Amino acid sequence: MSLTDTQLYTALVTPMKENGDLHLDDLASLIHRQDEAGNGVLVLGSTGEGLAQSLEHKKQVVKTASSLNIDVPIMVGVGGFNLRNQIEWIEYCHQFDVDSFLLVTPLYAKPGAKGQVQWFKSLLDTADRPCMLYNVPSRTGISMSPLVLKELADHPNFHAVKEASGSIDDYQQYRKAAKDIAFYSGDDALLPFFAMAGCHGLVSVAANVWPHATHEYVSRSLDGRGPELLPLWQECTDALFKGPNPVPAKVLLHEKEEIEHSTLHPPLTEDDVEDISLLKNADNMIEQWYSEIE
Amino acid sequence: MSLTDTQLYTALVTPMKENGDLHLDDLASLIHRQDEAGNGVLVLGSTGEGLAQSLEHKKQVVKTASSLNIDVPIMVGVGGFNLRNQIEWIEYCHQFDVDSFLLVTPLYAKPGAKGQVQWFKSLLDTADRPCMLYNVPSRTGISMSPLVLKELADHPNFHAVKEASGSIDDYQQYRKAAKDIAFYSGDDALLPFFAMAGCHGLVSVAANVWPHATHEYVSRSLDGRGPELLPLWQECTDALFKGPNPVPAKVLLHEKEEIEHSTLHPPLTEDDVEDISLLKNADNMIEQWYSEIE
Amino acid sequence: MSLTDTQLYTALVTPMKENGDLHLDDLASLIHRQDEAGNGVLVLGSTGEGLAQSLEHKKQVVKTASSLNIDVPIMVGVGGFNLRNQIEWIEYCHQFDVDSFLLVTPLYAKPGAKGQVQWFKSLLDTADRPCMLYNVPSRTGISMSPLVLKELADHPNFHAVKEASGSIDDYQQYRKAAKDIAFYSGDDALLPFFAMAGCHGLVSVAANVWPHATHEYVSRSLDGRGPELLPLWQECTDALFKGPNPVPAKVLLHEKEEIEHSTLHPPLTEDDVEDISLLKNADNMIEQWYSEIE
Amino acid sequence: MSLTDTQLYTALVTPMKENGDLHLDDLASLIHRQDEAGNGVLVLGSTGEGLAQSLEHKKQVVKTASSLNIDVPIMVGVGGFNLRNQIEWIEYCHQFDVDSFLLVTPLYAKPGAKGQVQWFKSLLDTADRPCMLYNVPSRTGISMSPLVLKELADHPNFHAVKEASGSIDDYQQYRKAAKDIAFYSGDDALLPFFAMAGCHGLVSVAANVWPHATHEYVSRSLDGRGPELLPLWQECTDALFKGPNPVPAKVLLHEKEEIEHSTLHPPLTEDDVEDISLLKNADNMIEQWYSEIE
Repeated sequence: MSLTDTQLYTALVTPMKENGDLHLDDLASLIHRQDEAGNGVLVLGSTGEGLAQSLEHKKQVVKTASSLNIDVPIMVGVGGFNLRNQIEWIEYCHQFDVDSFLLVTPLYAKPGAKGQVQWFKSLLDTADRPCMLYNVPSRTGISMSPLVLKELADHPNFHAVKEASGSIDDYQQYRKAAKDIAFYSGDDALLPFFAMAGCHGLVSVAANVWPHATHEYVSRSLDGRGPELLPLWQECTDALFKGPNPVPAKVLLHEKEEIEHSTLHPPLTEDDVEDISLLKNADNMIEQWYSEIE
Repeated sequence: MSLTDTQLYTALVTPMKENGDLHLDDLASLIHRQDEAGNGVLVLGSTGEGLAQSLEHKKQVVKTASSLNIDVPIMVGVGGFNLRNQIEWIEYCHQFDVDSFLLVTPLYAKPGAKGQVQWFKSLLDTADRPCMLYNVPSRTGISMSPLVLKELADHPNFHAVKEASGSIDDYQQYRKAAKDIAFYSGDDALLPFFAMAGCHGLVSVAANVWPHATHEYVSRSLDGRGPELLPLWQECTDALFKGPNPVPAKVLLHEKEEIEHSTLHPPLTEDDVEDISLLKNADNMIEQWYSEIE
Repeated sequence: MSLTDTQLYTALVTPMKENGDLHLDDLASLIHRQDEAGNGVLVLGSTGEGLAQSLEHKKQVVKTASSLNIDVPIMVGVGGFNLRNQIEWIEYCHQFDVDSFLLVTPLYAKPGAKGQVQWFKSLLDTADRPCMLYNVPSRTGISMSPLVLKELADHPNFHAVKEASGSIDDYQQYRKAAKDIAFYSGDDALLPFFAMAGCHGLVSVAANVWPHATHEYVSRSLDGRGPELLPLWQECTDALFKGPNPVPAKVLLHEKEEIEHSTLHPPLTEDDVEDISLLKNADNMIEQWYSEIE
Repeated sequence: MSLTDTQLYTALVTPMKENGDLHLDDLASLIHRQDEAGNGVLVLGSTGEGLAQSLEHKKQVVKTASSLNIDVPIMVGVGGFNLRNQIEWIEYCHQFDVDSFLLVTPLYAKPGAKGQVQWFKSLLDTADRPCMLYNVPSRTGISMSPLVLKELADHPNFHAVKEASGSIDDYQQYRKAAKDIAFYSGDDALLPFFAMAGCHGLVSVAANVWPHATHEYVSRSLDGRGPELLPLWQECTDALFKGPNPVPAKVLLHEKEEIEHSTLHPPLTEDDVEDISLLKNADNMIEQWYSEIE
């Protein structure tokens, strides 16, 4: 399955044991579920708590994911504030059968436009495969500068943008600035709107819990069938974000016995999900919806 | 000089050689200048590009700073997204003669209130000396939860808060929630306003460039003499932030021959300072002001 | 043509002579153009500078509009800050053949939820025909309270809402609160997105200039054909709002010789449109689009 | 008492009978209280529900206020969206012994910079006495354009600015643009901060309820004694704004038997004050404070 054909990536949670070690069996089983559903897999993204994992654990995740012999593409998260470490990380991953990298806008440091261009150029130059750039100002403190799109749009490794600013207006500005780049919505609930404005697909949290249903949601949204999807999917994906991501997703996956533990790395904790009934209710509604359309 | 007596900490830039290695001679000389001016020193904060330094370099900075036999207190920055690494960092620093730690709100992960409390509690429990908690939502993506103040205000190591939300209103809410905690303004320009609302002092970028003048600015602001300071200091500190911090500060320090190179770690770059004349002009104005009041 | 069938209302500009008097011939001709295109007509809305007109002029506008024997519905704007004056205005209009009223959220006074409910209830009770409530916080200083929808949704004269908060998210919240009320987008550019989220139609500024093309834009948007419309219509309607509304619309109508003068009432002035070429260019693009689809 | 000497204007509520008619006896008595306290009086401002009064009532208010033979200056509110009506209103007031006019930024219409300049120039040209321009974007939908200050600062009738944007930063920008204009804070709680940044005084809501105490608050704030005032005055003025202004002020004045009824014009209503104990508590605290400092 090619990158271009992939309309849905699941930003995979990283399952752990109670002591915070990786739960590699659960990891493999989650990835196989995505493969069956035909969904690309993003490991070590924000939802995978990529930044909170130790380097050793990150290596194990990539090794495991790339050894499962799956059909769907694998994307690996690259993030942090030390450029040299990130370059080393990309170089380490080159030995594995992974398909692309997700490069997040520099975080915390609030660089200027030129600093951003230099940063992304270094990473794109290092990578020997396609990259998706990730704009998520609510986490990083800055928006991706339009100069990045202008200066780097022709870079052979600049493949796509994951846009999660939450603003359709901003999205339309970005897209105008880089017409040949594929844009992915980074927000489950906004997909139907982004689809209308011409996006290529979704990087999803919801697909962790509902791999097949979300697959259907994406393909229908891209077919312009948003109006029939909206109220239900808005309500159910909202439930998944009624707490710091990926806390509700892990709690619900555990509830559904897809993962053995809902353990998270600090500063995330299950204590910040107050009402699990909201999650169960959303789960029932989506399962019901999917059973009816099949 | 005690922590309580320290009204001004300089968030020190980290001087480097052109290849990105530390410039330890310049570091020592910068610290001695602060010592002469009677200013506490914060190493490896945001202004010190703490997160972009390698662990090896961070260790050298702390070792150097603590060996200089200075009178003013030294505070060490603690930041990142991996709790275990931060705990190890604090434990490493315990062997040195440093006076306190700066603990930044968890970044990028956007944890909930309880996750924040657990995070800070772990760090406060680890430290064996006073800590200043640092609220800077424009960088971290979240505000420090009022629950942190409520739950942890009585922790023996919780000494102070550095407040850099940019909002006087928020500041007043925080202060109300923790009356016995010392609050420091994290924003040079807002100090006179924070002083009016009862803050204890300033963690300053400007003091890198103007150690004595900023010292005077702080003590006058705390004496309620803000009105005579405001237009000049607003204009001059604004100039220092007309580019991603600490880029303009390093460029001006280099221009004044206080540091040999203005080298920065990615994603920061001198290319994002467009107009050095603005900085020189601010420098002239402050030097003039200081020469007149002496 | 019934209210329910009307998917597009044109928020009509009020044409004037150079001295600020009404230009009734131009008014009649503009209304006939809308009638031909099958577009409902809103007179004395914000775009019609309703609040800046003298009472005498307002009466003449309603008298003229209602005497033209047109097929499309006429809606009359009701706005201001003196409830008694607004009640008198509605009662005055009852003698004419107008189909509905547009009731704007109270402006400037920033009332609470209960004050809003009482205000709208008085007006709905006074009117003897259907009313559209108008939410436009960027002008009035407040958002329509959800309590208004909750308390008044069953009022026999509460027919529709014109939503111009600029936020799709807010729109979805309102709609959820009042499922049986017809929602109209108050923003030309957002129509395709509102259409996806289930709106009934558009109250349009663009239709002043492009009555037939906008009619087509609306019906295609409501048919889920947004993706083919978006980049062009966004760019062209943006041009119409590159200045205080209705200044650009009047300037372009004058340029196209649809109205004799582009005169506006203070505080609006043609001087605040800087670049007429932007408007002409948008006009060419829409006319070209429309000629190709006919 | 000259305009220049007046550091405090009370934005007077307009007392009414239960049927909405003016209560002229209460009006006279409120004005005399302000006179005794040495506070200038603003009639028919936002707090006086100026826009909701009928023209006849507005005339009676000005006539009454100007006939009381008081020592403090009287300022009359001028606001609305019809320039001709406002010019007529100013001309009408010229026959009375009033000292200045308050000219609010055009509301609802969201004019451009040039339209604002023309609007204010017309009003300043009409007036034959000093005017205070009033910036209150949360009500009018726009901020006063800096062009207004630039173009009109030298107009002989442009005397002062009432700044109520809620932002100290904006205030400092305005002040920089017009160094010779007197700035008044339009926000009771921000006065100490504005005082630090060089403002001339306050246009106050709180002074309706606490004429003498507020007078003292203003003179101490201007003397740089903000720190001793802040927590108490913040809390108490906050209570006065826990509902749409002037609802809480009228409710408390009625409670204190300073006015016979707390009647308001729609869209304001006493129903939007939920908890009168908050107001009574604030009242006790201020009265206590004032009794101690006398």
